[in-house]
Amino acid sequence: MIHFPNQLLLQEAVRQALLEDLGRAGDITSLATISATATSHAKFVAREAGIICGLDFAAEAFRQMDGKDIFEAILQDGDKVERGGLIAKISGPSRTLLGAERVARNYMGRLSGIASLTAQYSARIAHTKARIADTRKTTPGLRAFEKYAVRCGGGMNHRFGLDDAVLIKDNHIVAAGGIVPALHAAKKSIGHMVKIEIEVDTLDQLKTVIEVGADVVLLDNMSADQLREAVKLVGGKLLCEASGGVNLETVKVIAETGVDLISVGALTHSASVLDIGLDFD
Amino acid sequence: MIHFPNQLLLQEAVRQALLEDLGRAGDITSLATISATATSHAKFVAREAGIICGLDFAAEAFRQMDGKDIFEAILQDGDKVERGGLIAKISGPSRTLLGAERVARNYMGRLSGIASLTAQYSARIAHTKARIADTRKTTPGLRAFEKYAVRCGGGMNHRFGLDDAVLIKDNHIVAAGGIVPALHAAKKSIGHMVKIEIEVDTLDQLKTVIEVGADVVLLDNMSADQLREAVKLVGGKLLCEASGGVNLETVKVIAETGVDLISVGALTHSASVLDIGLDFD
Amino acid sequence: MIHFPNQLLLQEAVRQALLEDLGRAGDITSLATISATATSHAKFVAREAGIICGLDFAAEAFRQMDGKDIFEAILQDGDKVERGGLIAKISGPSRTLLGAERVARNYMGRLSGIASLTAQYSARIAHTKARIADTRKTTPGLRAFEKYAVRCGGGMNHRFGLDDAVLIKDNHIVAAGGIVPALHAAKKSIGHMVKIEIEVDTLDQLKTVIEVGADVVLLDNMSADQLREAVKLVGGKLLCEASGGVNLETVKVIAETGVDLISVGALTHSASVLDIGLDFD
Amino acid sequence: MIHFPNQLLLQEAVRQALLEDLGRAGDITSLATISATATSHAKFVAREAGIICGLDFAAEAFRQMDGKDIFEAILQDGDKVERGGLIAKISGPSRTLLGAERVARNYMGRLSGIASLTAQYSARIAHTKARIADTRKTTPGLRAFEKYAVRCGGGMNHRFGLDDAVLIKDNHIVAAGGIVPALHAAKKSIGHMVKIEIEVDTLDQLKTVIEVGADVVLLDNMSADQLREAVKLVGGKLLCEASGGVNLETVKVIAETGVDLISVGALTHSASVLDIGLDFD
Amino acid sequence: MIHFPNQLLLQEAVRQALLEDLGRAGDITSLATISATATSHAKFVAREAGIICGLDFAAEAFRQMDGKDIFEAILQDGDKVERGGLIAKISGPSRTLLGAERVARNYMGRLSGIASLTAQYSARIAHTKARIADTRKTTPGLRAFEKYAVRCGGGMNHRFGLDDAVLIKDNHIVAAGGIVPALHAAKKSIGHMVKIEIEVDTLDQLKTVIEVGADVVLLDNMSADQLREAVKLVGGKLLCEASGGVNLETVKVIAETGVDLISVGALTHSASVLDIGLDFD
Amino acid sequence: MIHFPNQLLLQEAVRQALLEDLGRAGDITSLATISATATSHAKFVAREAGIICGLDFAAEAFRQMDGKDIFEAILQDGDKVERGGLIAKISGPSRTLLGAERVARNYMGRLSGIASLTAQYSARIAHTKARIADTRKTTPGLRAFEKYAVRCGGGMNHRFGLDDAVLIKDNHIVAAGGIVPALHAAKKSIGHMVKIEIEVDTLDQLKTVIEVGADVVLLDNMSADQLREAVKLVGGKLLCEASGGVNLETVKVIAETGVDLISVGALTHSASVLDIGLDFD
Repeated sequence: MIHFPNQLLLQEAVRQALLEDLGRAGDITSLATISATATSHAKFVAREAGIICGLDFAAEAFRQMDGKDIFEAILQDGDKVERGGLIAKISGPSRTLLGAERVARNYMGRLSGIASLTAQYSARIAHTKARIADTRKTTPGLRAFEKYAVRCGGGMNHRFGLDDAVLIKDNHIVAAGGIVPALHAAKKSIGHMVKIEIEVDTLDQLKTVIEVGADVVLLDNMSADQLREAVKLVGGKLLCEASGGVNLETVKVIAETGVDLISVGALTHSASVLDIGLDFD
Repeated sequence: MIHFPNQLLLQEAVRQALLEDLGRAGDITSLATISATATSHAKFVAREAGIICGLDFAAEAFRQMDGKDIFEAILQDGDKVERGGLIAKISGPSRTLLGAERVARNYMGRLSGIASLTAQYSARIAHTKARIADTRKTTPGLRAFEKYAVRCGGGMNHRFGLDDAVLIKDNHIVAAGGIVPALHAAKKSIGHMVKIEIEVDTLDQLKTVIEVGADVVLLDNMSADQLREAVKLVGGKLLCEASGGVNLETVKVIAETGVDLISVGALTHSASVLDIGLDFD
Repeated sequence: MIHFPNQLLLQEAVRQALLEDLGRAGDITSLATISATATSHAKFVAREAGIICGLDFAAEAFRQMDGKDIFEAILQDGDKVERGGLIAKISGPSRTLLGAERVARNYMGRLSGIASLTAQYSARIAHTKARIADTRKTTPGLRAFEKYAVRCGGGMNHRFGLDDAVLIKDNHIVAAGGIVPALHAAKKSIGHMVKIEIEVDTLDQLKTVIEVGADVVLLDNMSADQLREAVKLVGGKLLCEASGGVNLETVKVIAETGVDLISVGALTHSASVLDIGLDFD
Repeated sequence: MIHFPNQLLLQEAVRQALLEDLGRAGDITSLATISATATSHAKFVAREAGIICGLDFAAEAFRQMDGKDIFEAILQDGDKVERGGLIAKISGPSRTLLGAERVARNYMGRLSGIASLTAQYSARIAHTKARIADTRKTTPGLRAFEKYAVRCGGGMNHRFGLDDAVLIKDNHIVAAGGIVPALHAAKKSIGHMVKIEIEVDTLDQLKTVIEVGADVVLLDNMSADQLREAVKLVGGKLLCEASGGVNLETVKVIAETGVDLISVGALTHSASVLDIGLDFD
Repeated sequence: MIHFPNQLLLQEAVRQALLEDLGRAGDITSLATISATATSHAKFVAREAGIICGLDFAAEAFRQMDGKDIFEAILQDGDKVERGGLIAKISGPSRTLLGAERVARNYMGRLSGIASLTAQYSARIAHTKARIADTRKTTPGLRAFEKYAVRCGGGMNHRFGLDDAVLIKDNHIVAAGGIVPALHAAKKSIGHMVKIEIEVDTLDQLKTVIEVGADVVLLDNMSADQLREAVKLVGGKLLCEASGGVNLETVKVIAETGVDLISVGALTHSASVLDIGLDFD
Repeated sequence: MIHFPNQLLLQEAVRQALLEDLGRAGDITSLATISATATSHAKFVAREAGIICGLDFAAEAFRQMDGKDIFEAILQDGDKVERGGLIAKISGPSRTLLGAERVARNYMGRLSGIASLTAQYSARIAHTKARIADTRKTTPGLRAFEKYAVRCGGGMNHRFGLDDAVLIKDNHIVAAGGIVPALHAAKKSIGHMVKIEIEVDTLDQLKTVIEVGADVVLLDNMSADQLREAVKLVGGKLLCEASGGVNLETVKVIAETGVDLISVGALTHSASVLDIGLDFD
């Protein structure tokens, strides 16, 4: 089974989400209208096709509400689901089911939406060696979860934060006095387990980067022709990442230029939820 | 000025978002390439037209990074911005600007995206008395913020959680043994400051609700004709909320049926970010 | 069984209370004088008559200390208990029992005290249609718990915070420029799921409120005669809440004026604990 | 000035209390009815005589809401106030004043209530050498604050938790196999900076304690005659603390027996709030 | 079994430590290279002789990672272990074992290091009545844990914080205007369950302390001759604690002067870890 | 100035450390013996030579206690200090100085101890190209701070957690079925911004690693001769890190083998504090 790799983080997030929804007085509707002993059976069903992600979050939401494991996953994260496909089953006190339902669906819908969009991008470039990568344009507080969703959709993760890799952008280059001093400064102060990427806008800049050396070069807002040229210049000496102007229409052409990676902010900042329903038996 | 109404909640959220992005080692790129004394001036600029929301979040991100107020809002939340329009200015240590930039933009982009989508829906129905309302289909942990964005876009807020109003849905009705016992149970146990809404799928159900009484009725997945008939039946005795199958194409027809409210999950679960850039001088 | 409706909130509160009592070094007396393997049986017994509330808090305190469910409730929240009545039993390691005892008793004593006082007020007005309501005059950090105790004692909950209903008081009226603009402003900006209450001191003010409309009117510090007149004026068009000068002596007369609700700050701000002992076998 | 001695603890508590009251949507009434630029002046006034406590909590509540110091204390904690006496002034945005008012008053009312009750007990025994002491029967989460209030009222603090002093009670004595082994066990394992108190019910037990030695003896539920005899037996070799059956009527007689301390659970578990009003100019 | 006396504190600390190590993306190495279903057996083995401490922390780390109790302690805290000695066994998913290993070893290594160093000091003075005591020179955030390790090594705990006992140092004496006013001030304001210690540098100061009275006297940086003289002067009327210039070479001579306690900052601020390995079968 | 790169993390850590030391009742000694208006001037002075680290932590401790910036750094982090050298000055309320002193000194002493030990190691190998690196053998909860101290002492940081780089150890290799499948698995699943290191014990293993490719190779417990041979085999194609059996005596020989990095757990797990005094004027 594929699971989110840090259950402690997940547990805390789900707890906060439940507290947000339950508020101070709890699920007053269910408390008023449903007996404490009533039980229900229900099914999570996809109302549109896509890639499922977030089953652990749903399971945890019901576990925290009920104290027991009442959620049974039928699919696993990363699985493809068709419209109408069964995702998971749940049995337990009706109040628990209704009290945790929204949190479970909000997580699953959002993460599955990201996974599904990632899979769409990936599908368009499956015939190339390029891979789709995410960005730091994530929802505040949900980065690790959204990047997991990207992986479930077949994408690659870029940096998780400002601290786990160097990415020298235009402003850094200006402040450092150019590409050469910027790269030298980075190499001097950065730990040996940290990769260095640098953004270039022109092929001239790229040549400098190739000379000084880096792990990855970000080819920002280049045309397909420029990208092709850039890939040729690099000649495999460093990874080439394209960014800017990427959408489901343009991604194929970009991938076919030979770049290694295409980063897409929209994966996390503009994915629609995948519509997942909870049908009571 | 329009501000998010609970600055303590905002401060804690921004703190968590900064910690998420800074990780354990901070902004290693800026630390390596930019001098501690370098300063910059930059402008937040809209790269597409829309409604701005989230200025307080950006201001707070820079305040927490810098210890000073270095963010100057030019617009205020709820303002309309054109493509290229100036939103805010910022001046201070370059490291601070780059260190908090992503958090500021992630909040502003997301909240402005929601406000802008809400405004689009609202514009389509401005000729009617209907109002657009949000749902609980929000991002886990961001509900109060996203609902604020809906207000900035001209929308109405539905419940903030399971605890601040009663919404009796189909499952509650089944569990309670019907609409009548469900409404009676709610009225009996709910505080006098709490409103009661109930979902109906048919006009027959609606008639029962009108008889027993409630504050709001949710007309779920009804056709325009049914909605029109429902509004007539209700005759102003309770508020009518339409939901289901609402999108930018259908919303006008729904609003013209005479309903008071149209709730749209997409406002918060599927809005794209508004593209906001940070241009350094 | 009646349970506090948000177990996640309860768990966190009990954890904080245990940490407060255990401090940095734990229960040093029991550690020094009692063997780790010694076990005890004990009974929670009422040392005075009243209404029991807080059993879940006690159960949780022992569960967190022991890792197991060692608390057995005999009564349930809201039950009446006589002097000497058995409330709950507990069996387990003696150190656990003594280590969590104070937290369990502090919660149960306080919440049962509130429930018992509420029940006393309610009993005095049982022959009328009026209901006793609480206020926001609660212990900082314990509001949701104390309002639950009010419900267990037969009372109604007023607002849980500043955010879940509108209550326009004298200062708001002055600031808004009168009752009419205040009510109009509230109706314009408040969500459709939120009720509006407004305070009046005179019958003239009341007439204005009736004209403009609201959900509830707060009749503040009125004499019984005024209240009676107010109820007549209102004629069922909105709920009437009386407040001010309410105590166990005056409540009956107030209730008999025909008001719907009587709010009593003393329920939560001045209730004595119910004396509950823990007797070891 | 007398201040609560741990401002970090106070800041966090006030923050939680404000969040509890502001909820997710903030003070919706003031937001709707009062302009963002309106300012007010108001006075905290005692509506009954007593001892003031909690000024720092009120000051902090307004500071957190406003970002500025807008609260001016006229009295200080521990001061006596008459009915109608001015306690503090406040000037600032009307929304801030109304948004933080309830939290400020809830803290001040509760803590002043405890200080006032402590002062009443202390006044009854001022002609003796005895001092009033508190217990661990405090509100969960507020212990340090309530014990501060006891000090402001002229009382002494007993243990702050299970960890800062040893108190061997009847159950410990039974578990340890008697007073002698219990005291020996405590002396053996406890740090040299920790005091030891032991509870006795009979004069025979007391004699054993005097022989073995301790810092304090708790004379539980003894009659005045027994207490007098106990004090004589002890002869100043250890501190004598009386507990059980203490109220405002009995405390004088108990103090006159010559005991050093009289502990009173009611100080913290059953004090009524001191009624403090906020009068707007 | 000997356990850390506040499991709630321990659980939270271990959770934070795991989150620190797992970061945002979890144990990416194990996730990449080890199957989710692979299981392992491993042994915690001492790579040098010493005193074991911290087994509960290791157990908790694996429990939080796995959700099950997969750690089996062979020794208990405070036990002596030889080089190569078996400390504990563990069986479970390989990913769990590798994911929690470092946290478990970091806690056990550090706490065992402190216990072992304490035991070394204690062994040097076992022929005297003196006891080794710790100080507040502990790692920020780990005080309660490190003081527990001191106890496991046979040492005594001094104050846990600034709040649980009085220690009047030179600066306090100067500020108060001398030893006499300082002691009087302390006695007047401190609760009856709190001990008072005062630091002296000279025998003259000591004589004053003996006259006024205190619980403990701290003889700071005195020579062995001075200490001997001091002990004679005190004559058992208060506890004598020596501090300053204490190391494994000097401790014996100091202890033989007759002092009751010798406090050693190095126990917690400069102990090396005990080397504990995790050997996979 | 050199500052810890994540002030938000630092602020929270210092707050927790102050709360730990102040406990529930605060600095009862200073409150009893020192007037609220007394002020003091004091100097932080090195009592032994070393490298200073942690000035921001001290500054923050006094800031949080006082609300003002009363700490003036004379040196900065990373500076060398001689015995008796002045590090910082502080002026303010005497109670503040004494209340935050221990937290300030505990942080500075520990971090300076780590920086100083790192500098000692680095000095021994300054004539080589090798650099000293830390490990994950850090104090739970203090990793980012201790790794900063290593940088201040001239060392390099290895991984900050399990998530920011891949380190394939012996157990992973066994579980994956050998070096080749382990490296292939890592390369396949790891993001493009993440480096891969693998541990080898033999030169044969090393040859395989060179063939398959990695970023860094960990040469574990090899003799100087083996290391020399390894460096030759690698020929600059990947970074060589030596570990095992490193101490101040052996480090020079290891460095002279030509390795790039030498990792030393003792930097963080066994450094003594640097003795820093606070001398009051």
